Amino acid sequence: MTKKIQRFFENESPASPCLVVDLDVVKNNYLTLQNQLPGLEIFYAVKANPAKPILEVLRDLGSNFDAASIYEIGQCLALGIAPERLSFGHTVKKESHIHEAFVSGVRHFAFDSLQELEKLARAAPKSSVFCRFLTPNDGADWPLSDKFGCMPNMVVELLCHAADLGLNPIGVSFHVGSQQRKISSWEKALEKASKIFDEAASRGIGLSFLNLGGGFPSQYRTPACDLEDYTRIIKSSIKSNFSSDVPRIIVEPGRYISGNAGVIQSEVVLISKKSPEAQKRWVYLDIGKFGGLPEVLDESIQYQIRTPRDGGDTGPVVIAGPTCDEVDVIYDSADYELPIDLEIGDRVEILSTGAYTASYCSVGFNGFPILKEYYI
Amino acid sequence: MTKKIQRFFENESPASPCLVVDLDVVKNNYLTLQNQLPGLEIFYAVKANPAKPILEVLRDLGSNFDAASIYEIGQCLALGIAPERLSFGHTVKKESHIHEAFVSGVRHFAFDSLQELEKLARAAPKSSVFCRFLTPNDGADWPLSDKFGCMPNMVVELLCHAADLGLNPIGVSFHVGSQQRKISSWEKALEKASKIFDEAASRGIGLSFLNLGGGFPSQYRTPACDLEDYTRIIKSSIKSNFSSDVPRIIVEPGRYISGNAGVIQSEVVLISKKSPEAQKRWVYLDIGKFGGLPEVLDESIQYQIRTPRDGGDTGPVVIAGPTCDEVDVIYDSADYELPIDLEIGDRVEILSTGAYTASYCSVGFNGFPILKEYYI
Repeated sequence: MTKKIQRFFENESPASPCLVVDLDVVKNNYLTLQNQLPGLEIFYAVKANPAKPILEVLRDLGSNFDAASIYEIGQCLALGIAPERLSFGHTVKKESHIHEAFVSGVRHFAFDSLQELEKLARAAPKSSVFCRFLTPNDGADWPLSDKFGCMPNMVVELLCHAADLGLNPIGVSFHVGSQQRKISSWEKALEKASKIFDEAASRGIGLSFLNLGGGFPSQYRTPACDLEDYTRIIKSSIKSNFSSDVPRIIVEPGRYISGNAGVIQSEVVLISKKSPEAQKRWVYLDIGKFGGLPEVLDESIQYQIRTPRDGGDTGPVVIAGPTCDEVDVIYDSADYELPIDLEIGDRVEILSTGAYTASYCSVGFNGFPILKEYYI
Repeated sequence: MTKKIQRFFENESPASPCLVVDLDVVKNNYLTLQNQLPGLEIFYAVKANPAKPILEVLRDLGSNFDAASIYEIGQCLALGIAPERLSFGHTVKKESHIHEAFVSGVRHFAFDSLQELEKLARAAPKSSVFCRFLTPNDGADWPLSDKFGCMPNMVVELLCHAADLGLNPIGVSFHVGSQQRKISSWEKALEKASKIFDEAASRGIGLSFLNLGGGFPSQYRTPACDLEDYTRIIKSSIKSNFSSDVPRIIVEPGRYISGNAGVIQSEVVLISKKSPEAQKRWVYLDIGKFGGLPEVLDESIQYQIRTPRDGGDTGPVVIAGPTCDEVDVIYDSADYELPIDLEIGDRVEILSTGAYTASYCSVGFNGFPILKEYYI
C-alpha cells in the first residue's frame, strides 16, 4: 500500500470493489530488476496486467514485451511499440494468428512441438524460433502443469527440424513456475539449457538465445526471498554454465512488475455464522474468484488483507466472494484470521493485486459489473 | 446437438469459438419440467444463462425468475417481467441492493443469518423472507460448500426473529447441489423441511412456502437419471412429508433449463506430444477455463465432445485451453479419448454447454475476445 494509493482512497472514495495501481511502483520494479540483472533484457509478460497505462510506462522505459496472443500484440503495436520489441511467447498459436503477427513485423516466436514448427514455417518463414522445455516447478505458488514445454530430450531434434524447415532456431526457454520460492529451480534449468546448447552445437546448430521466463516473486502473505537472492543465483548460474560464450538472455517478468503495484479495495457484505456453536465466522466480500481473484483457486495465492480495525483481537474466518456460486470461496483451509470487531460495510484492502486480477474478471457472471480499475 | 444448431453451423460457418443455443430446447425443457411437477412453480435461475432471448422465451411461458444480484433483477424488470415474479434468492446482499430491489417492487428475499435479516428489516420492511438451510450435497457434480445456508437447528430461531423485526417469515429453502445425481438427497432435505415447519408452528409461526432449489440434471459425459426419476421421488416425498397441508412449492432450475440447449463449437489449435515416448497427445482448443468453461475446474463437469472424425480409433488425450496459463487445462485425469486422426484446424463440438459458460468468460485474459453467442 503506497501513500499515493492511500491518498486516492481517501480523496476519491471510489465505489467498491476496485483495483488501484500505482504506476511509480511499476516503474520502480522495472528499474530494480534491470539494475539487478545487467546485460539481460526484460520482456514484460503482458498477460499479468495488460492495462494501457502500464504498457505505456514500460514502453517509455525501453522494455520489451512478451505477448500471449495476437490480441496482445495488436495492443502493443497500437501503442507504438515496434514489432522488434515483441516476442510471441505462447507455444500454441492459431496459424492465422502467427501469420498476422508475421505480417505486422514480429519475428520472434516460441514453440514446443513439431506441429507448431510446421505452422511457423508456413506462416512466419525464416523467423527466429526458440523451443520451450519442461523443467520441474515444485516450489511455485501458482504451479505449472506440463501444458507448455516439451521434454528436454526432444529439444535438439526440434531445433534441427526448425533449421530444415527454413526457420532460424535461436535458442531455448523455460519457466520455473509463477511465484517460485525455490531459488535453486533456476540453477537446474540453466544446467539443462547449457547441455542443450552443447548438444545443438555438436549437431551444427549454434544457439545464441536463452529465455529464463518469469517466476520472480511478488509479496503475498508468506514473504518471498528478496529479489537479490534470486538474481544472485541466476547470475552465478549463468556464469558457471555459459562462462565462455554467454548468449543473449531475456527474462519475462509479469507478477514481479505489476503485482505489488496494485491494491484491491473491497467491501464487507456480510459477516455471519453457520450455527450457534460455529467457531469460524463467514466474511463475504464484494469481490471473489469470478470478479478478479482467480488466483485464489485452491487457495494458491494468499494475499495479505488489511482492514480498518487491524491491531486488536482476531478470530478465524472463511472468506467468500459475492456470487451465488458455492465455489466462489476465497480462503477456508488457509486459516485466515480477521479482527473480531470487523463490521459489515467495512472496506478492506487486498494487497499485491496488480497482476492476474482485473483481466481475468468474468464478463458478467451473476450480472456483476467488471472490476473497475484506476491507474495513478 | 439439435438439427437447428447443426444447420446453423453448416449455413453460417461462425468464427470459432462460439456458443449456439436452440431456444426450442429451452422452451421444451421448461414445459417438460412444468408438466412433471404440476402445482409447483418454476423460478428460472437467471445466473445459469442470463441471455436476453432465453429470459424472453421463459417470460412468455409464464416463468418466474430467481435473481442472484440486483443487476439480474434490473435485467428482468427491463424485459417487462413484473417484480412479483422475481425472487432475490441470494442470501448475501448489500443493503443498498436490497433497498433498490425493494423500491422496484421485489418482496421476496432469501436469507441465512441474523445479520442479513437486520439488513432486510431496514431496507425491505415487511417483505416475505425465507431461510436457506444446509443439507448434505454429496452426489452433486458441481458440489456446494457451506457458503449458503445455516445449520437446520438455527432456522426456527431466525424465522421467529424475522417476525420480531416486522418481516414476513414465509418458509425455507435448500439446495441439494448442482447436477445432483443422488436422487435421495431431496427426500432427506424435504424431511428436514417438514420438521422445521412443525417446529415453527409450535412457536406460532405458520410457514407456507418451500423452495426446493435446483439440482435437476443436464446430460453430460456420464448420463444422469431421467427427469422423471427425480420428479417421482420429489412428488412422493412432498406427499409423505406434507400430506395434510401442502405449502406453496417452488423450484429453481438453471442448468436443467438452458444446459442441453447449447453447443460450443471450438477449433483444434494444436495436437502435440511432450516426448517421443509419450502415450497421451495434448489437444489444445481455442476455448478453455477462462473463456467460458469454468465448470471444468477440478474436471467437475465433464462435457461430451464430438469431432468430425468420430467412429474410428481413439487414443488418450489431455485437453487444454488456449490461454498462456498453465492452469487452463480442461481434462487430464478424466481420461478422455479422441480420434487418432483428429487434425489441427478441426472443429469440435462441446455439448450441453448452454448453462454456466458464456457469462463466466473472462473479460480479456490474454487479450482473447469474449465468447460469441448465438440464440436461434
